[in-house]
Amino acid sequence: MRSLPHFRRMVIAGVGLIGGSLALACREKGVVSEIVGVGRGEKNLQDAVALKVIDSYTFKIEDAVKGADLVILATPVKSLARLAGEMASSLSPGAIVTDVGSVKEPVLQIEDLMPPGVHFVGAHPIAGKERSGVKAASPALFKGARCILTPTSKTHPDALNRVHALWEMAGSYVIIMDPARHDRIFAAVSHLPHLVAYALVNTLLDLEKSEEGLISYSAGGFRDFTRIAASHPEMWKDICLMNRENIIEMLEKYETTIGRLKSIIRSGDADALYDEFERARQVREKL
Amino acid sequence: MRSLPHFRRMVIAGVGLIGGSLALACREKGVVSEIVGVGRGEKNLQDAVALKVIDSYTFKIEDAVKGADLVILATPVKSLARLAGEMASSLSPGAIVTDVGSVKEPVLQIEDLMPPGVHFVGAHPIAGKERSGVKAASPALFKGARCILTPTSKTHPDALNRVHALWEMAGSYVIIMDPARHDRIFAAVSHLPHLVAYALVNTLLDLEKSEEGLISYSAGGFRDFTRIAASHPEMWKDICLMNRENIIEMLEKYETTIGRLKSIIRSGDADALYDEFERARQVREKL
Repeated sequence: MRSLPHFRRMVIAGVGLIGGSLALACREKGVVSEIVGVGRGEKNLQDAVALKVIDSYTFKIEDAVKGADLVILATPVKSLARLAGEMASSLSPGAIVTDVGSVKEPVLQIEDLMPPGVHFVGAHPIAGKERSGVKAASPALFKGARCILTPTSKTHPDALNRVHALWEMAGSYVIIMDPARHDRIFAAVSHLPHLVAYALVNTLLDLEKSEEGLISYSAGGFRDFTRIAASHPEMWKDICLMNRENIIEMLEKYETTIGRLKSIIRSGDADALYDEFERARQVREKL
Repeated sequence: MRSLPHFRRMVIAGVGLIGGSLALACREKGVVSEIVGVGRGEKNLQDAVALKVIDSYTFKIEDAVKGADLVILATPVKSLARLAGEMASSLSPGAIVTDVGSVKEPVLQIEDLMPPGVHFVGAHPIAGKERSGVKAASPALFKGARCILTPTSKTHPDALNRVHALWEMAGSYVIIMDPARHDRIFAAVSHLPHLVAYALVNTLLDLEKSEEGLISYSAGGFRDFTRIAASHPEMWKDICLMNRENIIEMLEKYETTIGRLKSIIRSGDADALYDEFERARQVREKL
């Protein structure tokens, strides 16, 4: 394991489940002296202070980052570039800026907004919970989870190493990946499943207009879809629009598979249908 | 509640999770004197005797049904018509034949195979477990679950009443429904979700051919899909082919929704995308 960095002043912009959990992990390991929260909702920031997630807070990121050597952007992906612009001129040389967004290519613009001597490293911790918000934060959230770092040719190697060490400290297994490859893979394994679930639930809602009570007949299988489709609509809207090209490509691949199943069913080809289902069944054993 | 019928000799063809659980519920309530199992696998039937699910067994349904006043067909839906044909001439007048199949219109042919004085009533208990087989059977499986009965104009009212009382005795909430409506509703709420899950898993398998390790990046959302797609491929193949027309219709409605989402994402219409997701999210609160 890499040697643990020590940070004097850490800023968490967006003190929710992810930002709050990373702050708690840093505290637990004693790798940070001071943690400053940035947000818009004062009640949430007060809760975060009461929970000892942060030491203090401010509403202005440009105030928070003065003298900070580590800035974690943990707000919705759509807001990252704006925040980067707001804080850029206040950042101190030597500071590291990193994020936790689930789309990585559009985040690259942050890199170009950084002043000389400030280094950006893109990160995507693969962690979550059904509950969100700082009250659900836990120093153990990232233990055993993967965290993907997406450096570019411009990324400073020392900054990359320090962010790597930070996530290892939090218990994550760090993977280095090209940002474009990250966005393509997550369009397939994360964004597509959410769209598939939203589409299924809405198809049944459409059907219920002419068949009242239809959804009440659903059982376990469908209930799992509604759980996925209950994810934050605001966040998923942003992800879909920021990873648009990859998601459209994945939706089209998915449409091809649906079309294939439909034509097998229509033709009554029992063997081919069995093969499709059996192939899918085996994946679970491998996971 | 209807008065409990008493059955002298009950035959369970297919002593698995559903057939076994119904047998156990009947025993617990003391509504049956003798239970005879019919199956192909002797080990399973021996297990069922050891678990006191059945009193005895035979491999030939025509032997089992002699003198029986209640015959439960709990084998895969595809085999129901064949079994009905095999046993028809051995059934005793007054016997009630019922099934537990998840597709109901194709089962109607059983009605026409019954000799005079023998009454068929279609049934679909909405119950299941991740584990299958007689060892997973429980007298409580149907408690609080729905059971749909699908009588036709030919169904004998007394037979319908007795089957109704049987499922109420097992703890189910009984719903009477037209067989065609049943098959349409379940194409939407049960069969379509399974196909959607199979298609998603297979799309990712296709993608993994050119992007090795892709599926290993999947998180909670996708894992739920693999659970659904791990269902018995043989059973789902039969259901899809037996409820073909309804399923194709539902797949087409689903394709329409996927196409709508795709065009909203392509056009970048954030408000419309948010509305789609928010609409889906609310369903969970209602369930």
